[in-house]
Amino acid sequence: MVEAKHQPQYELLYHPSIPGRAEFIRLMFEATGTSYTDVANENPPDDSGLHGYALVQDMSDPNSTGDDDGNPPVFAPPGLRIHGVGKGGRPLVIHQTPNILLYLGGSLKLAGSDEPEKYYVNQLALTALDLNNETHDTHHPVAVAKYYEEQKEEALKKATDFRENRLPKFFSYFERVLKHNQSAGKDKHLVGESLTYADLTLWQVIDGLKFAFPNEMRHRSSESPLLFDTFYPSLKEEAWLKKYLDSKRRKPYSMGVFRHYPELDRQ
Amino acid sequence: MVEAKHQPQYELLYHPSIPGRAEFIRLMFEATGTSYTDVANENPPDDSGLHGYALVQDMSDPNSTGDDDGNPPVFAPPGLRIHGVGKGGRPLVIHQTPNILLYLGGSLKLAGSDEPEKYYVNQLALTALDLNNETHDTHHPVAVAKYYEEQKEEALKKATDFRENRLPKFFSYFERVLKHNQSAGKDKHLVGESLTYADLTLWQVIDGLKFAFPNEMRHRSSESPLLFDTFYPSLKEEAWLKKYLDSKRRKPYSMGVFRHYPELDRQ
Repeated sequence: MVEAKHQPQYELLYHPSIPGRAEFIRLMFEATGTSYTDVANENPPDDSGLHGYALVQDMSDPNSTGDDDGNPPVFAPPGLRIHGVGKGGRPLVIHQTPNILLYLGGSLKLAGSDEPEKYYVNQLALTALDLNNETHDTHHPVAVAKYYEEQKEEALKKATDFRENRLPKFFSYFERVLKHNQSAGKDKHLVGESLTYADLTLWQVIDGLKFAFPNEMRHRSSESPLLFDTFYPSLKEEAWLKKYLDSKRRKPYSMGVFRHYPELDRQ
Repeated sequence: MVEAKHQPQYELLYHPSIPGRAEFIRLMFEATGTSYTDVANENPPDDSGLHGYALVQDMSDPNSTGDDDGNPPVFAPPGLRIHGVGKGGRPLVIHQTPNILLYLGGSLKLAGSDEPEKYYVNQLALTALDLNNETHDTHHPVAVAKYYEEQKEEALKKATDFRENRLPKFFSYFERVLKHNQSAGKDKHLVGESLTYADLTLWQVIDGLKFAFPNEMRHRSSESPLLFDTFYPSLKEEAWLKKYLDSKRRKPYSMGVFRHYPELDRQ
């Protein structure tokens, strides 16, 4: 069974062509050198003849009551299929970004070194994901299914509050977490001495914010020196991340969570 | 040490007088008959002379770099202090509602019967909490720190989209999860045969929505019969929940996440 041997254990199911909420998951695979299939982007055919994104849409079909492997329905992408660990040894399919990060945190050893750290890591990843969601709402404050242009007036107000009040609150918080962990983490890790999914999640949100709000981020960087002078750039210099960012697996920011609308940035 | 013996293992740290995001945590304690201190509501003095809410504010002090027990800073309430399980046997302090639910799910046996169910439960609780957050945003679509009256125009638009597009999407989803689990859960449990924190979290969000959007909820109830005719009322009839809802520990809805503004409801 050569084919089975080469089949990756993990299938990532998400919209193609954008980093989006799947990027936090990709970074966990990339950081640990773990093989995975990015189903919609790699577009592989399966036995039923379905290709790529059709499999993602099938997973989150709004009429589904679950799949043939006994997994409950999925609310929305991203989803993760892990072979061999579901009920009766069948594939397990899980969704919700923080839930997938939690699962992989355990499997890929990116969740700290003991039980307290496991919960510290999880709460920091959740807080960074809240910031990610608030970033999305700056361009979609009224209706997720409508165009930005239909809610631009409200977006201007929302983005102003986000830049003036929310960003400083989040950055101050993560700066203080780095300070708390300074002797173990050396300004490079939020929890303990090693890389965790809290680091990866926060790094990705900061990277996206630098794309979406370049003026605001330049202005804010001096307020949180550990975060912007050490944490963010030192992780970016890691060999695995440089290699990944240069690869085709890393999708450019475009019309996903992180969008660059100059009118929403600091003027 | 009579005092130590009677000291509850769990201290819930949250704003007083509202159910809010702490209600999901309270329901886990109440469902399992677990003793806990609701610090701000019970207002107990401690050794330093601080009382009630001051302890909550101290926990999430915007200048804190962590507490004396080695816990990192807390972004925002709710927080949970658990005695004896932190680093070196000291108290562990964790935050982020989904993180606290995850912790208690394991400790209080409300997280399903095996590993797959643990992640099913967690993803459903996270989805119900997303609905909770979207409910909050109907009255605060622009700025969390401003009054509703300052963003009423935007709230009318946001609430319309929420009622017309988001509520049906969430309710259809949970209805299909109940259908998926029908033979084990008997329309009473989302995952497996027993109560989990996914059930409790969804129940609380539906209960709050019935307060906030009574017209809309009456209109929607026939679309999801398992959810509204069996799941919600059968849990409400449980002896422990009836007793809790009649107690002073259950705070009335007022100016928290769930607010009843008639102009935001279906007309």
